[in-house]
Amino acid sequence: MIVAMQEKATEEQIDLVIDAMVDVGVNVHRTTGASQTILAGVGPTAGVDLSKFEVFPGVLYVHRISAPYKLAGRAFRPEGTVVEFPNGVMVGGGQVQVMAGPCSIETRESLVETARRVKAAGGNFLRGGAFKPRSSPYAFQGLGIPGLELMRDVAEAHGLLTVSEVMEIAQIEPMMPYVDCFQVGARNMQNFNLLRELGQVRKPVLLKRGIAATIEELLLSSEYIMSGGNYDVILCERGIRTYETSTRNTMDISAIPVLKKLSHLPVVADPSHGTGRRDMVAPMAKASVAAGADAILVEVHPNADKAASDAAQTLYLEQFEKLMSELKVIATAVCRTM
Amino acid sequence: MIVAMQEKATEEQIDLVIDAMVDVGVNVHRTTGASQTILAGVGPTAGVDLSKFEVFPGVLYVHRISAPYKLAGRAFRPEGTVVEFPNGVMVGGGQVQVMAGPCSIETRESLVETARRVKAAGGNFLRGGAFKPRSSPYAFQGLGIPGLELMRDVAEAHGLLTVSEVMEIAQIEPMMPYVDCFQVGARNMQNFNLLRELGQVRKPVLLKRGIAATIEELLLSSEYIMSGGNYDVILCERGIRTYETSTRNTMDISAIPVLKKLSHLPVVADPSHGTGRRDMVAPMAKASVAAGADAILVEVHPNADKAASDAAQTLYLEQFEKLMSELKVIATAVCRTM
Amino acid sequence: MIVAMQEKATEEQIDLVIDAMVDVGVNVHRTTGASQTILAGVGPTAGVDLSKFEVFPGVLYVHRISAPYKLAGRAFRPEGTVVEFPNGVMVGGGQVQVMAGPCSIETRESLVETARRVKAAGGNFLRGGAFKPRSSPYAFQGLGIPGLELMRDVAEAHGLLTVSEVMEIAQIEPMMPYVDCFQVGARNMQNFNLLRELGQVRKPVLLKRGIAATIEELLLSSEYIMSGGNYDVILCERGIRTYETSTRNTMDISAIPVLKKLSHLPVVADPSHGTGRRDMVAPMAKASVAAGADAILVEVHPNADKAASDAAQTLYLEQFEKLMSELKVIATAVCRTM
Amino acid sequence: MIVAMQEKATEEQIDLVIDAMVDVGVNVHRTTGASQTILAGVGPTAGVDLSKFEVFPGVLYVHRISAPYKLAGRAFRPEGTVVEFPNGVMVGGGQVQVMAGPCSIETRESLVETARRVKAAGGNFLRGGAFKPRSSPYAFQGLGIPGLELMRDVAEAHGLLTVSEVMEIAQIEPMMPYVDCFQVGARNMQNFNLLRELGQVRKPVLLKRGIAATIEELLLSSEYIMSGGNYDVILCERGIRTYETSTRNTMDISAIPVLKKLSHLPVVADPSHGTGRRDMVAPMAKASVAAGADAILVEVHPNADKAASDAAQTLYLEQFEKLMSELKVIATAVCRTM
Repeated sequence: MIVAMQEKATEEQIDLVIDAMVDVGVNVHRTTGASQTILAGVGPTAGVDLSKFEVFPGVLYVHRISAPYKLAGRAFRPEGTVVEFPNGVMVGGGQVQVMAGPCSIETRESLVETARRVKAAGGNFLRGGAFKPRSSPYAFQGLGIPGLELMRDVAEAHGLLTVSEVMEIAQIEPMMPYVDCFQVGARNMQNFNLLRELGQVRKPVLLKRGIAATIEELLLSSEYIMSGGNYDVILCERGIRTYETSTRNTMDISAIPVLKKLSHLPVVADPSHGTGRRDMVAPMAKASVAAGADAILVEVHPNADKAASDAAQTLYLEQFEKLMSELKVIATAVCRTM
Repeated sequence: MIVAMQEKATEEQIDLVIDAMVDVGVNVHRTTGASQTILAGVGPTAGVDLSKFEVFPGVLYVHRISAPYKLAGRAFRPEGTVVEFPNGVMVGGGQVQVMAGPCSIETRESLVETARRVKAAGGNFLRGGAFKPRSSPYAFQGLGIPGLELMRDVAEAHGLLTVSEVMEIAQIEPMMPYVDCFQVGARNMQNFNLLRELGQVRKPVLLKRGIAATIEELLLSSEYIMSGGNYDVILCERGIRTYETSTRNTMDISAIPVLKKLSHLPVVADPSHGTGRRDMVAPMAKASVAAGADAILVEVHPNADKAASDAAQTLYLEQFEKLMSELKVIATAVCRTM
Repeated sequence: MIVAMQEKATEEQIDLVIDAMVDVGVNVHRTTGASQTILAGVGPTAGVDLSKFEVFPGVLYVHRISAPYKLAGRAFRPEGTVVEFPNGVMVGGGQVQVMAGPCSIETRESLVETARRVKAAGGNFLRGGAFKPRSSPYAFQGLGIPGLELMRDVAEAHGLLTVSEVMEIAQIEPMMPYVDCFQVGARNMQNFNLLRELGQVRKPVLLKRGIAATIEELLLSSEYIMSGGNYDVILCERGIRTYETSTRNTMDISAIPVLKKLSHLPVVADPSHGTGRRDMVAPMAKASVAAGADAILVEVHPNADKAASDAAQTLYLEQFEKLMSELKVIATAVCRTM
Repeated sequence: MIVAMQEKATEEQIDLVIDAMVDVGVNVHRTTGASQTILAGVGPTAGVDLSKFEVFPGVLYVHRISAPYKLAGRAFRPEGTVVEFPNGVMVGGGQVQVMAGPCSIETRESLVETARRVKAAGGNFLRGGAFKPRSSPYAFQGLGIPGLELMRDVAEAHGLLTVSEVMEIAQIEPMMPYVDCFQVGARNMQNFNLLRELGQVRKPVLLKRGIAATIEELLLSSEYIMSGGNYDVILCERGIRTYETSTRNTMDISAIPVLKKLSHLPVVADPSHGTGRRDMVAPMAKASVAAGADAILVEVHPNADKAASDAAQTLYLEQFEKLMSELKVIATAVCRTM
């Protein structure tokens, strides 16, 4: 950590800060400039709340020098993490993966049609939500565990893996037989108790960036899972909230290369939530693969306009098939397969 | 709801939209202008996902006309809600309330000192956290239920009410004997399952605005609680995330009068989280009362620099006492007591 | 325009609003629902400040129905605009263009080396700044007109077109002989006097999106130029300000397909300013082409670390050449040439 | 400046950074920790673009330690600046000033009525715009110099000072006889050529914060003016752009105490632009004074609904008079006069 003192800071103020730094367990190196004193604290500060130093009298700025995460940092595994699933499918390797399906699991008929065409187009994962707490208390809330049973059944019949969102600790255990990958939604990115429990699980976790989360906060949340021993974390960019309203969120494509640089974890892009508009999904999916995404998560439905949730951003199956053929060309252009 | 068609929309496209509007249960009134057609849908749309209309061919804009919340709207109780506590203390009436205490409950000694001086200075609520999942997995995590027992004990001895944060459904029941008001934190503002359960409780709920939540989303979340029958909801502005970094969050003081206009619910301001800096708490507390806040929620600690969490934004007790005397003058200036 | 009245609005309030609507020149159609009245105003409102209706007593919401721009809208030229330069180079057609050069024009030697390699790699435009008012009053401020003379000279020798930023009306005339395309910087996107003057010019204008400008505001600014008769406007996405700090700005890649949908004007992407980091330029340039950009604007310098301005985001020429070969493959993947 | 190297940075990378630091003129102090090396650069860096160090191989973070502004910093004049006008009125002293008037100067009759009542209510400044480039090319554009003549005439007759916005360098000279204080609008906060010229003027400058400007950028812009020798700068908070849409901008009240802490310059608050809504002006004006503002800038008009611009946020004179009496009580509560 670095503490920069104000130009007029007194020796007494400087000593107080040095004492407090020693208190939190760092060794202090002092640099006295013509106009300003700088204190460099060397030692472990990952668990220390540095902001309290900011309000010490005479302090100008406080900076954390080391990243507050360790396990998620690129240095921990410079070669990059490849998450391998039971059937050999890998996320983070040479092949760009596609995870597709409805926002909410609805009927068997609709899901079978979806699975068949996702598989045929080259997708390896069937996605679908069973628990759908919605922002309006008056909207559809999901099928629950029976929905997941249905999804597992249909996915197996078509050779697909399953991804579904877990919303509470109490759902982890009952979901275990049905999902190959737990998804943590944007609203739960900082539900630290849930993250800690998922650290105990031995299945991959797809962790979505919160709608106002920084990249550092996303990595810190992945650290929560990894610190429990579960290193199979997949990070997901799904749009952030900005002042712009022509798209539902602003999809931060640059988060993809930034995450790949700062961390060894695979990165998936979700252009459905990233834009909230069906007609923007294809260009943003292509942009994501061009920018280095390891996988694409996309909402599709045989009758998209009538989807029980997220209809506006859900692709028709024909649109999805067209997108898949376009994505394959882009994947090749960035030296990957699909 | 209103659907504005593009200038070149065909009759066929217009008919498709009209059919879909009828499908969701509204009566459609059509206005055909020289260059543009407008469709007004009259009927209940609170549970309808209107965004799907945005991607219909030929559609320019879709607007929800009625507010998506009903119970939380000012029209539901034009005279305003006053939340009354067992000892007769009221939030939302003529008296501006103060809720003060440490971020985390730590020791009895420290809590007794805090309670004594909060009460003496005119505060009616003791606040303190018992469950503290932190953004770093390596930081202090709270005392749990024993902490709440301690808080209840100390509060009762000093004639204070208690406020503490509930983080999961499973905590509601065990917390019941110890808290007079459940606090829902910013990260849980859209934890709809938790909100629904709190709708069943017969104790007031202090609902914090999410760090990137709009005012409409905050009101929609309060609707979740109220739709369960619990109308004693207190809204809380605690700062939003913006591009500005000189304060931890940007405290949206204008949310106070906007909420008072749109809703009948009382509004509390939290200048501690709103700014994240001890030296900004006093001016922002004064601004909040001047702007019409019904209560102030503030972090205080006898040894603020050593507080186990949120040290940077925690007031010393002397600072708190000075602030209380200043706030009383401001309250008087806006025709309220304290 | 649409005015939605509050549920309890009186007939008197409704009449007041209708009168004011008639005053601004629209025909009013009234829809009276069970709980709410809606007033649709049909007629030209592009020059009307609608926000004043929002504060009329009894009003809930006011919405502008037609886009406030006309000439910039896709409907004005459904087939899309192709901007053609004197030498036949086109922006907005099948070929993706590249505009490259230093942030600031510095020495002839450096510029010659840049021009030679930009041309060899397939670029058709040399860019460079001559007027550089900087955010610090203590930094390098540009070479002025002599810098532009140098640029024109070098560009011509290599068969390149020139692009340079104009900052004030007084600079337009003296710049005329030296630039093929005027660039308007992000800070001047709403300098309406400058835009109006550029509407009188018969050279293309590259208009950058302001750092906090919405897509609608960008289109409205382009309308200023077009309403003067200059229809050769090229829109530029160059990153917006958000809460995220790991990149200097957040490059809004989705603005590219959104602009292509709402407007007929060509769109160029600037990944140098969009990210502010050399190591992020290549992935974001690729993402931009994949998302449909008509051109890429990029900062390059033979000795990037020593560039007089924007060094952090400037590519070395070797990096640029590598990027060009990668971009060609992406362009082909989206059915374009380069 | 501080450069923190990555954990695995090589000695070669560290040496390269040290050389580059020496190149820009700082003395380098090296701290070698167990896992990380930190380089502290001591010396003047106000004119140095530090971001280029961020992309050196092996670099983790770069921080500027000293504030990039000097003249605007609190340390330059710890006692605070009081701007004194010819008639003895002071901004930044014990008296809270009020600057009121129409957005645009329109008719003599209307301006006389405004001036009379502003003065009677205790205001000392008449504000009004003469140059009004609007975001729509189809809207009212202002009266120009004749409008300023009118304002000066009316103001003098009522013993008021004048404030008006300057938009271009060419307007400074002609405006000189008519204004006591030049206002720089939000869109021109980073028009550095204009700021430099205003540094040569011997009249106070009211500098508005840009709609997406940080507090640091605002202070850096004030430095531009001050570095020319004009130290009479008044800073103005007028709302920033955030994701929240229930107010036109989000007024950052906390900017007031933050600016008062970081700088010695007086701070004025503009609740009209800060909120964009007439019904929010009064609570936000009161909040501003409670938070320590030295002056309030507010739009008033005898027939507010018919104002040629900014009608939605303009107060009726009766509302203004009521606000003035309320503000006086708040001013007293924070130990100031009005």
